Amino acid sequence: MPRIAVDAMGGDLAPEEIVKGVSQVSLETDIQMVLIGHADKIQSLLDGGSYNPELISVRHCTSAIGMAEDPKEALRTKKDASIAVAARMVASGEADAMVSAGNTGACVLAAAKHFKLIPGVRKAALASVFPRQTEYEGQDRLGLLLDVGATVRCDAIELAQFAIMGNAYARRVSKVRSPRVGLLNMGAEETKGGDVLVQAHRMIREIPDLHFVGNVEGNDIATGRADVIVTEGLLGNVVLKLLEGIAEVAANVASHAAHESWRWRLGMAMLSSGIAKVQSLADFRTYGGAPVLGFEHLCIKAHGRSTAPAIRNAIKVAAKAVRDQIAPEIAEAIAHVR
Amino acid sequence: MPRIAVDAMGGDLAPEEIVKGVSQVSLETDIQMVLIGHADKIQSLLDGGSYNPELISVRHCTSAIGMAEDPKEALRTKKDASIAVAARMVASGEADAMVSAGNTGACVLAAAKHFKLIPGVRKAALASVFPRQTEYEGQDRLGLLLDVGATVRCDAIELAQFAIMGNAYARRVSKVRSPRVGLLNMGAEETKGGDVLVQAHRMIREIPDLHFVGNVEGNDIATGRADVIVTEGLLGNVVLKLLEGIAEVAANVASHAAHESWRWRLGMAMLSSGIAKVQSLADFRTYGGAPVLGFEHLCIKAHGRSTAPAIRNAIKVAAKAVRDQIAPEIAEAIAHVR
Repeated sequence: MPRIAVDAMGGDLAPEEIVKGVSQVSLETDIQMVLIGHADKIQSLLDGGSYNPELISVRHCTSAIGMAEDPKEALRTKKDASIAVAARMVASGEADAMVSAGNTGACVLAAAKHFKLIPGVRKAALASVFPRQTEYEGQDRLGLLLDVGATVRCDAIELAQFAIMGNAYARRVSKVRSPRVGLLNMGAEETKGGDVLVQAHRMIREIPDLHFVGNVEGNDIATGRADVIVTEGLLGNVVLKLLEGIAEVAANVASHAAHESWRWRLGMAMLSSGIAKVQSLADFRTYGGAPVLGFEHLCIKAHGRSTAPAIRNAIKVAAKAVRDQIAPEIAEAIAHVR
Repeated sequence: MPRIAVDAMGGDLAPEEIVKGVSQVSLETDIQMVLIGHADKIQSLLDGGSYNPELISVRHCTSAIGMAEDPKEALRTKKDASIAVAARMVASGEADAMVSAGNTGACVLAAAKHFKLIPGVRKAALASVFPRQTEYEGQDRLGLLLDVGATVRCDAIELAQFAIMGNAYARRVSKVRSPRVGLLNMGAEETKGGDVLVQAHRMIREIPDLHFVGNVEGNDIATGRADVIVTEGLLGNVVLKLLEGIAEVAANVASHAAHESWRWRLGMAMLSSGIAKVQSLADFRTYGGAPVLGFEHLCIKAHGRSTAPAIRNAIKVAAKAVRDQIAPEIAEAIAHVR
């Protein structure tokens, strides 16, 4: 029975939506959860809805790290912050994995501070799912991009290790048995992108049981040519935020257009079912979240604007990853790339 | 009177659309143009339409570099390729700038081989315009992103020099007198992104007469927070191709949707004027092209799928840059950043 530590105080909609998500999971699964945060507040929110008390416990703590706080400084001064308490609970074995919708940097740093890296792993990676077109029947409608900001710059070995970590995670979490792994680059040819990428290409190609599709370019991100896209944190972060930014601009343009003329308003109404579909696809709030990979324990960073369904997804994904024992598989594959 | 060397054989729609674009410019301006390519073919295309023979001459050459050819190898073996002839004409003073819709790598390499770097400039940059939302009245609807692939990785000085080059070009080509220049990074704080970006931030901030808005993140690319976005080639190339890829996916989804149901078809019809507007905004074929910056002479790389209007824009932009003498301004500003 996996036990998940849930940061009740992290995120724009905490603690209300976090508690709601946890309550829902308690009625649908056998996942054990600990809500970490202000106990009275959490208990009154729990009591305001329905939940299974056998699966939920509460760990009181008095402080939380804000979304805009400097992660390093905040973790240093707020030892009792919900996110730090969650990480310590996982590290000490009181829980198996953690979920937080709070400050991303604090999530990654709390994991780095309290969790051990998987033997052989050199750097942790923050991975994020993103919406894209699909290319084949049965392909997941979401791709996985890593790293998106845990490690700014990477050498070839680190990139090859990210390929292994992303592959292991995607195999468990998506329905795709053999995800297509690509290396983000500025050209399809293996000679492109400078020394680090040329060497990373060669190393990833040699990894056993990994379906490497070679270099992928910027346009391939949107088309679904790869299910797992490997890159350094700087590049991954820019790509992820650009995808989010375009989705927001498109939504703005559409809502602005609807105010402009009756023709447009009517047209948008005719298209409403399709627009809703596209919006849900591009809505980062509905996804499970971004796993911090490379540590012996899993930390899932849910989107800052997570609502209850997103928290619910994140907890279920974390529990699945615990059940499927992703860390040992990564440790074994990593032995090929050091 | 600027004289522009135009590669008649480069691009998916060459030589037909190239010759058509040149013919149009000859009827509208006083720009002198040399069409470089197969003389008989070009002359018969010219004669098929109307043009001003006083402004157009033809330089015969027998070979051309294909879009998929390896640029280095092709330039080495095809000394007589249209793009190489164009670059040599500019270098020898027979023309003032060149325009090609051909192989991008060959364009950059031909410039690198035959043109001198502006004194003080360390690396050339390929810049590209891209569509985005605007933030203020009078802002150009296109932003400028550089480098998009001429230089894979950059140090801080090179990035600061790109800021100067992009600023000088944008001031001349767009209507914005003082473009907002941003440094692409993974966070707004000046401490983000690793040593190179932290140092580049500090250097760009010190450049006189340059409106630096600080770090811009991925989502800012779509919103118009900066008019000129500075980054290394690897990152810029991925961003540019991602923008192109998303535009294509959106077009595919829309046309697919229209086939699905009469409701959608009708909805699309109601929205057609708006969709056309968005499409024209996202249509990379209608833009003037991507300047190769940093050399004493300008080379403008038009999109590979350029039609006559795109070639026309590219030639006019090249002529304007020649008239406005962009290279001396860059040389002067560069003196601050070495």
